[in-house]
Amino acid sequence: MLTGSGLIQTLAPRIERVAGRLPRRVFVLTSAPSWALWSEVFLTSFAEPPVVLFLEPGEKFKTMGSAERLLREMARAGGDRGSLLIAFGGGIVGDVGGFLAAIFLRGIPYVQVPTTLLAQVASSVGGKTGVNLPEGKNLVGSFNHPLAVFADIGILGTLPDRELRAGLMESVKAGIIRDRALVRFMEEHVDEVLGREPKALEKVIGASIRMKASVVNRDERESGLRMILNLGHTVGHALEQATGYKTLLHGEAIGWGMIAALCIARQRGTIGNSQFERLVRLVHLYGPLPALKLKATKVVAATGGDKKNVGGVRRFVLPIGIGDAGVVEDVTPAELEAAVAYMLARAGEQKP
Amino acid sequence: MLTGSGLIQTLAPRIERVAGRLPRRVFVLTSAPSWALWSEVFLTSFAEPPVVLFLEPGEKFKTMGSAERLLREMARAGGDRGSLLIAFGGGIVGDVGGFLAAIFLRGIPYVQVPTTLLAQVASSVGGKTGVNLPEGKNLVGSFNHPLAVFADIGILGTLPDRELRAGLMESVKAGIIRDRALVRFMEEHVDEVLGREPKALEKVIGASIRMKASVVNRDERESGLRMILNLGHTVGHALEQATGYKTLLHGEAIGWGMIAALCIARQRGTIGNSQFERLVRLVHLYGPLPALKLKATKVVAATGGDKKNVGGVRRFVLPIGIGDAGVVEDVTPAELEAAVAYMLARAGEQKP
Repeated sequence: MLTGSGLIQTLAPRIERVAGRLPRRVFVLTSAPSWALWSEVFLTSFAEPPVVLFLEPGEKFKTMGSAERLLREMARAGGDRGSLLIAFGGGIVGDVGGFLAAIFLRGIPYVQVPTTLLAQVASSVGGKTGVNLPEGKNLVGSFNHPLAVFADIGILGTLPDRELRAGLMESVKAGIIRDRALVRFMEEHVDEVLGREPKALEKVIGASIRMKASVVNRDERESGLRMILNLGHTVGHALEQATGYKTLLHGEAIGWGMIAALCIARQRGTIGNSQFERLVRLVHLYGPLPALKLKATKVVAATGGDKKNVGGVRRFVLPIGIGDAGVVEDVTPAELEAAVAYMLARAGEQKP
Repeated sequence: MLTGSGLIQTLAPRIERVAGRLPRRVFVLTSAPSWALWSEVFLTSFAEPPVVLFLEPGEKFKTMGSAERLLREMARAGGDRGSLLIAFGGGIVGDVGGFLAAIFLRGIPYVQVPTTLLAQVASSVGGKTGVNLPEGKNLVGSFNHPLAVFADIGILGTLPDRELRAGLMESVKAGIIRDRALVRFMEEHVDEVLGREPKALEKVIGASIRMKASVVNRDERESGLRMILNLGHTVGHALEQATGYKTLLHGEAIGWGMIAALCIARQRGTIGNSQFERLVRLVHLYGPLPALKLKATKVVAATGGDKKNVGGVRRFVLPIGIGDAGVVEDVTPAELEAAVAYMLARAGEQKP
């Protein structure tokens, strides 16, 4: 994992260093908008231009069908086991790119070059890759670690404001579950962070990545500890599914999902009232989160399809104070309904 | 790897032993013909019936589309990370089943219960799983080892004669590349083996599996030694592709492919004339191989799409005497054309 500025201009020699040599055939998986902005800079360090593959932007293209189309393009372009793939884009490009690399010819090496804040923090550590099924998010995939991750902070300058805010939900999460100091920093430096001051951004992104890496390294296969990274995901995934993956950015769904989880935690007393108020405020400081017009029953029903539910048990990550969290399996339907109702009430107050 | 009789009747306790417990949700991937023959025996040891998933028989259903359909069925049936999959069928069921297990929820455990000779010998060791693309065979997949392989020799009694013979091509191959004694045994016991005498079958299958396991264990990622297992595959895959995966069983295609490889080896002098005649005769002893009506140019062109061709080099496994083999990358178009022409001439002499 390398975080810094100017990485994209110098990618070819960097890949050569981690891969031993620059492979004969290099594929770049990207999205048309990212490529339109960055192709010129990207290509400067390559003597021979890589084969560019495009994934349409949006969660609804994160499918087995897209994967098949891209794998076929790779086969037709003469991809072989010595080829390498660069995933250059946001979280979806990273997830799909890592999955393609995992299954093309039973595995070729790949590197991640995340272009969004969310991807830099969330998708670049842990080796989770995959696609969605109509039945739910990320139901298909592999654990597949990239050779390297190049997180270029410089690229965030071009990020739309909404995506920056959605990405910062990942840092809010990191603070809540593991890093009191990050919570405080984010409370005290809202303007600097949202104003993209490099020092503030590097501080927040660096802390988020370190938190994630330390948790993941201690729990590669997600058997225990790593579960806490899913704070906000049980309800967040349900929201994405209930809105057809169209209305919400992933970080925004996780933002609302965290509010639901905070609500359950307050009911159970694992956080106090003032901690609850403080953390809900923190989520909103990095909002606004989009308004939601959903029935609570629909959201509750959608929580059943999350893949963390082993044997039908609905797993929830709940914060314990500020800077710690645990996993419970006994959240009752009544607790869940109350939390979703609270969240939807807050979401109704948002401007649409 | 457990080889023996009566394994299918006692599968549930055997799985319990290797998996620690019998999972709440067990999936069986199988084909309708296998299931029609064996479901009653299969189900005797299960207190709760597993969820049965069907794959249509035939190479042309070994696709990303089939994989997606089956993954969706697994999601809808409530599959979770504690689920287990049993691949119960021939090589295609094994390949697709192992792939589903590799990518469903980023990996669930699975066991192989191969029902054909070819699958018992070939697909059960090495952890190769996957599906085809229109661009070529096995271009997508994973290395994914099963928890256990249960090879029930008893099931071979119901195998159609043609499939038995096609499966034995794998043993012929094992003998040619690594086991002189197996070559001799198969020459001297044709009637006993084709007559399915248990002792003869166990001898041949056991030797083939041991050969494969010893090669694979020394070379997990197929970087070098393991390549020799692909004897007959360069031309064999081309034949399957040129016939649209409809005319030939996999073992039959490998049989013809071995004849082409033997032909090149004789031209290069890595085997002598009498060794050539002896090994070609051995292939035919376990035939007949189906007749082929193909143009040599079409077959030669189709060899280009094989995934073993790193950076455009066409790799060939060539026998060296009897019981050894090596990999070459410098087979010229002229050599290949001559070998394919010889093979097609022999194939033209076969009764259609």
